[in-house]
Amino acid sequence: MLHLAAGTDERWGQWALEHMDAILLDHAHCEKKAASTALSMIFRYPDRPQLMMPMSALAREELEHFEQVVALIRRRGGEFVRQEPSPYAARLMAATRKHEPGRLLDILLCCSLIEARSCERMQLIAGALAERGGDAPGHELHELYGLYNGLLVSEARHHATYVELARGCVQIDEAELQGRLAELAAHEASVIEAAPREQPRMHN
Amino acid sequence: MLHLAAGTDERWGQWALEHMDAILLDHAHCEKKAASTALSMIFRYPDRPQLMMPMSALAREELEHFEQVVALIRRRGGEFVRQEPSPYAARLMAATRKHEPGRLLDILLCCSLIEARSCERMQLIAGALAERGGDAPGHELHELYGLYNGLLVSEARHHATYVELARGCVQIDEAELQGRLAELAAHEASVIEAAPREQPRMHN
Repeated sequence: MLHLAAGTDERWGQWALEHMDAILLDHAHCEKKAASTALSMIFRYPDRPQLMMPMSALAREELEHFEQVVALIRRRGGEFVRQEPSPYAARLMAATRKHEPGRLLDILLCCSLIEARSCERMQLIAGALAERGGDAPGHELHELYGLYNGLLVSEARHHATYVELARGCVQIDEAELQGRLAELAAHEASVIEAAPREQPRMHN
Repeated sequence: MLHLAAGTDERWGQWALEHMDAILLDHAHCEKKAASTALSMIFRYPDRPQLMMPMSALAREELEHFEQVVALIRRRGGEFVRQEPSPYAARLMAATRKHEPGRLLDILLCCSLIEARSCERMQLIAGALAERGGDAPGHELHELYGLYNGLLVSEARHHATYVELARGCVQIDEAELQGRLAELAAHEASVIEAAPREQPRMHN
């Protein structure tokens, strides 16, 4: 369903839990970046009426998630701070073609893959939290579980929204679209595979 | 209350009504730009915790207004399209100082003045619509009246939010802050005064 070319090792979820403060900070940065990417589509493609409402609504939703994650970071006694940008999105986006309409198609499909990977990682975090009992109300991990279990539903929807927009914006037959999505998914898998592991991130 | 150094001639509202399609298009662009400016503050000042939640919430609200205005443009049979950027915001922002913390203070105060001017212009539009009977439910102008009458309340709040953030973010005594706000308000009034009048815009 998520179109990813390679799934993440299930142990990633438990590893993420061991570094939850760093993961939450990176996650907040990802939500902020996702909002900014959606908004940038409105600036870059003002003459694509189909993009306006979905991109604006998606940016609003990502900002709401940003606020949720920052609020949780603060309740854990931390603070949202600057961090070295993860190379994931820039490396993924390096595969987008330079000329229209290939460029728009590629950006939308890359965005769908980012959302898909985020959704997969959130599923792993929610699963790891459930294994530790966090799915039970009142458990000390329940708040974290609630956040991730809630967000992954949105991320799965965002993934589908971007593929749907690609279909609506670019004149291309379905087989060609699926072919390009598979190519970019293979590229995404190689970017994830090559990501530096020193710092815990949503996309490494 | 709005800290503007010079009020707009009341006839501006009736003139705007004569060019409502152009005003609505410019208005949609202004909401999009306002959202982008708020979001850019989160990127530019990640180490200012006081900015995160208010800027994110404000960006979400501006995007909601963007969607409302685009929806109305479409119900009137038009479409949101590209337009030549208005020089207003760039000319206003040219007065911001280059070094911190003066830069942050100036950006926040300029943003508050943009919100204040937008609020004033929306009041004039709502007033002009009311003069033509648009405040009566069922009147053909009532939908437009509802939009502007609703939005100007938010814009007035945004104006206050930016001044409040300037107070919270920058160590400066109140007299100094009011002095700088008055200087920038005088600059804003001169930018509005010098704005080209050929195309109907929210800020000319």
